[in-house]
Amino acid sequence: MFKGGYTGSILRVNLSTLKISEDSVTVELARNFIGGMGFCMRLLYCETGPQTKPLSPENKLVFAVGPLNGTIFPSASRYVVAAKSPATGLIGYANSGGFFASELKFAGYDAIVISGRAKQPVYLWINDGYAEIRKADHIWGKDTWKTEDILRKELRDPKTRIACIGQAGENLVSYSGIISEKSRAAARCGLGAVAGYKKLKAIAVRGSKKVDVATPDRFKELVSELLRKLIKSSSIVTKRKYGTAALVNIMNEIGRFPTYNHQKGVYPKAEKISAEAIVEKYKIGQCGCYGCIVNCNNLLKLKSGPHAGLSGDQPEYETLCGLGSQLGIDDLDFIIYCNWLCDQYGLDTISTGATIAFAMELWEKGIIDEEDTGGLNFVWGNKETVEKTIHLIAKREGFGKILSEGVKKAAEKIRKGSGRYAMHVKGLEIPGQDGRAQKSMGIAHATASRGADHLTHCTMLDESGIFENAIKDRFGEKYLPEMANRLESKYKGIMAKECETATAVVNSLVTCIGAGSMSPPIYYWREITDAYRLVTGIELTIEEMRKAGERIAVIRRAYNIREGLDRSDDTLPKRFLEEPAPEGPCKGQIVELNEMLKEYYEAWGYDNKTGWIPKARLVEFGLEDVMQELESLGRIP
Amino acid sequence: MFKGGYTGSILRVNLSTLKISEDSVTVELARNFIGGMGFCMRLLYCETGPQTKPLSPENKLVFAVGPLNGTIFPSASRYVVAAKSPATGLIGYANSGGFFASELKFAGYDAIVISGRAKQPVYLWINDGYAEIRKADHIWGKDTWKTEDILRKELRDPKTRIACIGQAGENLVSYSGIISEKSRAAARCGLGAVAGYKKLKAIAVRGSKKVDVATPDRFKELVSELLRKLIKSSSIVTKRKYGTAALVNIMNEIGRFPTYNHQKGVYPKAEKISAEAIVEKYKIGQCGCYGCIVNCNNLLKLKSGPHAGLSGDQPEYETLCGLGSQLGIDDLDFIIYCNWLCDQYGLDTISTGATIAFAMELWEKGIIDEEDTGGLNFVWGNKETVEKTIHLIAKREGFGKILSEGVKKAAEKIRKGSGRYAMHVKGLEIPGQDGRAQKSMGIAHATASRGADHLTHCTMLDESGIFENAIKDRFGEKYLPEMANRLESKYKGIMAKECETATAVVNSLVTCIGAGSMSPPIYYWREITDAYRLVTGIELTIEEMRKAGERIAVIRRAYNIREGLDRSDDTLPKRFLEEPAPEGPCKGQIVELNEMLKEYYEAWGYDNKTGWIPKARLVEFGLEDVMQELESLGRIP
Repeated sequence: MFKGGYTGSILRVNLSTLKISEDSVTVELARNFIGGMGFCMRLLYCETGPQTKPLSPENKLVFAVGPLNGTIFPSASRYVVAAKSPATGLIGYANSGGFFASELKFAGYDAIVISGRAKQPVYLWINDGYAEIRKADHIWGKDTWKTEDILRKELRDPKTRIACIGQAGENLVSYSGIISEKSRAAARCGLGAVAGYKKLKAIAVRGSKKVDVATPDRFKELVSELLRKLIKSSSIVTKRKYGTAALVNIMNEIGRFPTYNHQKGVYPKAEKISAEAIVEKYKIGQCGCYGCIVNCNNLLKLKSGPHAGLSGDQPEYETLCGLGSQLGIDDLDFIIYCNWLCDQYGLDTISTGATIAFAMELWEKGIIDEEDTGGLNFVWGNKETVEKTIHLIAKREGFGKILSEGVKKAAEKIRKGSGRYAMHVKGLEIPGQDGRAQKSMGIAHATASRGADHLTHCTMLDESGIFENAIKDRFGEKYLPEMANRLESKYKGIMAKECETATAVVNSLVTCIGAGSMSPPIYYWREITDAYRLVTGIELTIEEMRKAGERIAVIRRAYNIREGLDRSDDTLPKRFLEEPAPEGPCKGQIVELNEMLKEYYEAWGYDNKTGWIPKARLVEFGLEDVMQELESLGRIP
Repeated sequence: MFKGGYTGSILRVNLSTLKISEDSVTVELARNFIGGMGFCMRLLYCETGPQTKPLSPENKLVFAVGPLNGTIFPSASRYVVAAKSPATGLIGYANSGGFFASELKFAGYDAIVISGRAKQPVYLWINDGYAEIRKADHIWGKDTWKTEDILRKELRDPKTRIACIGQAGENLVSYSGIISEKSRAAARCGLGAVAGYKKLKAIAVRGSKKVDVATPDRFKELVSELLRKLIKSSSIVTKRKYGTAALVNIMNEIGRFPTYNHQKGVYPKAEKISAEAIVEKYKIGQCGCYGCIVNCNNLLKLKSGPHAGLSGDQPEYETLCGLGSQLGIDDLDFIIYCNWLCDQYGLDTISTGATIAFAMELWEKGIIDEEDTGGLNFVWGNKETVEKTIHLIAKREGFGKILSEGVKKAAEKIRKGSGRYAMHVKGLEIPGQDGRAQKSMGIAHATASRGADHLTHCTMLDESGIFENAIKDRFGEKYLPEMANRLESKYKGIMAKECETATAVVNSLVTCIGAGSMSPPIYYWREITDAYRLVTGIELTIEEMRKAGERIAVIRRAYNIREGLDRSDDTLPKRFLEEPAPEGPCKGQIVELNEMLKEYYEAWGYDNKTGWIPKARLVEFGLEDVMQELESLGRIP
């Protein structure tokens, strides 16, 4: 239907009726919601709602790619998956790199909408415009690594790309994710459990279609220009060499490296679990996602210990924090192995680490003992317990069953004041960022629609002081020096709004935040708008592109407001609001949330009393349907 | 999904697979294409194309209503039906009043999309959000009157509304229509044949849902204001008393009443077939469509002759012309009966009359004789032949088989110079307007997307000199006095563009052109935009509403350009271009088409050489998908 960028087709699969059909992507949907994140939000807003239980045939699991996937645009490698989240009961979304996204485009689809629930385990086989629901009894119960190996062999094409769930998803663990290429994880919000409930073990995809580009010559010129900028950029050397793991030392140095369940922001043994240590000891190769010249992923091999000989991908920064500093573990062999174990089970390493860290703090505080844990000793750094607990969580057995629902629900079951140590926002565990040490992360965690999250807003402009020029480019000088100062809460609401808007677009195109868009900022509104126009032929001005990003963020928030969200949900655990950072470079800092929230709401035009979206604001985005529904529910300020 | 105006659901019925599903109306579709005509054009542009044969399972028959149907807005009684036309091979559309449109809204649907082809005759039964495909063997072969009676009885609810085809549609006559309430005809473009090919005999619908209105109090105020204006308007008395038939005398007086296959614009016996004569002799009652206070339809009864005792609705102006003056027939008993016969068979009276008139002129010119016609004598005024021919056309028997394909194809079969007398544009027969006597009708017939048509543009502002104030309101004084002068071609291209835009919106809302919008002009852009906003809650400015109308007209034209249309198709039979009107008040007039076309293209921003739509113009309407497709076909100027 479109000459460029879009395939024009949305694949709809109803697993209850086994019906497969196709929908069209209209130019109106494309223009207003771009792709990826935007398509997911629009479709889910319309097709699910307060009446939808996350684990029910009525919930829909939407996979979506965007107009840049499958083109030569740098690092346009990611897909978005979304559904109503079993972790939060609100809108849930996650995204992942690798080769699944581009392959889906090559196979002829911009999105897949999975509804219903199969009677028996199934997988979906998409092959060049043809889709088929196949039995998956032979892979049900298998981990993601074996599943990928079996399907790749069965489908007789080594280039088949597979996204699948492990046993954690099958067993409906609240923080199970969807894994492709064995380690690329759409990890957060429990979308693996949504697939597991639907008995959807995997989606295998293969395609040979080319993605058309409306204005190929000028698009190539733009891409060349961006690649030149990317190659020259200061951070690419580090990123290439170390990946996101490079952040371990950087964050620890500034006191932003969560340790012992967010009690501290400094881990004395950080050096031992740093990227530098990993590369020196384990690196045997390097690889990357579709169309990426950064290649931030190192291939590692364990050379000693009980799992010697095993190889796989390098843990991300978040995993080194979640399964390392947060648990008081400094054994890289062990962290690397547990990372792979989580990938195999299909577990989100952030929430897995955070949930075990929660249990360890409860142990420290004397709230739980061996009677509660079935004999496990949750003292900080107890590796045996950590490994056993990962198995128990994935299998939902013993104490693992309680932990498998995440810290919020676990605290509700354990009681005895444990809620104070449950580090989550809206039911989602907090990742490896301490808002006390970077205020923008405080507002980001508090307001992200999927719950505590550092990527929805991707506020990185004050990350380490290196982006002052980026701030100047985007906002002028009026917010400097405060905006560039990570310990200053002033102007962070404004920055969060801008970053959230840009990230919504980047996640709709769908390109990689890490490799080009936000950090380092290789391209921004002008380049994004140019790329979009040159690929799709759809004429959007920069202002309209920004508006599309805002529209996507607004409908995402509206989804949650429809579920009952108000200002009181945009908050943080008391630890961040009341307990000053106890040591390190940020000693004495708390998150000044109220001030930032006020600024954030003001920047968005939301109501500061309720956190709701005024009528006129919804109408401005052409979301009258949303406005009317929220009004009828009494959820308009 | 929307609080007001829309039900939010599009019903999709595939008659090949017998699958029924539902699609959502998105706020983006609603905002850009309004409803009715707009929805039909958008859906058909996307889902059919040059590869689609009009009579094939791949063609889609789309019924659509709009945001005002089912509300208290005056005369919002009409539905639009559209498909690729078997008459023209281009976009085909027709609309009809009655009660079908509002009932469809009450049943919960904004549109029905019929695809595929049933193996056996079927009808569709839609009952309050539930749809079912039922066997129709018992009504197949029956006329529309009997079909309606049988279904109404069978469905046990006297308020069931039925749209159906007669034998003409079943037999694939190129100008068979879809009939509801026995006389409300969506007559043009052969959409009855599209239904017939699909073996769809009827759609029966019943609903009890209320149409929500976003801002009910202010909407009521607006409606009251419009009703007050309507009641005070000068023409309502005539319309109520005589309906469109009132035009017979009016048009004849100004020499615009086609006679003898458009040879003349004056019929000496017009008085005998006028509304005044009908009302005096046959009227036994009066009725109207849903929500209309005009009630332009008289109920008639034949009091003598072979069909004495039969009663039914009054013929429209077009029928009195097509089956009267065009054939040289002045017998009202006979015309009224033939009108009912056409309704029963499901024949378009315009094309039926025009096709017989064509045969009569061929007879007059000596091109055909009894050998060609199977013994029928086609001398002007031969009623026996006319009646027999109607039967033969509907049954596609004898000479009727040739005539059943319309004048263009009939002329291709008959040859011998008969093409000169085939009064059509793009394959559609010309209605009861003579462009030589009202220049705006000349440009309207030449450029309407469905072929020769007076309603696509609804250029009535120069109709009888009474709308000079309306011209002033809309255009200011700069185009006066020329624009108000029906014999002046200057400014008629500009007027046609404006009227086409407004009509596209009116046909999307869907309200009645005759009762309020265009003639007399009770409401226009401001009131339309207010009504739309108050009902739907969707905020469109007047400028955006006008743009929506333009978008609908543009995508309709783009559909035809994709099929191969260019400037040379926007023409008229030589009769209008070269033969001066032979007598009456317009004696000596021809249609100055080239000048008007140039002005019309310029007003629309189309290319004067090709008649195609420039890239920038398509982009301006957000129709980049259309732009790209036309560009790839080399159909962009």
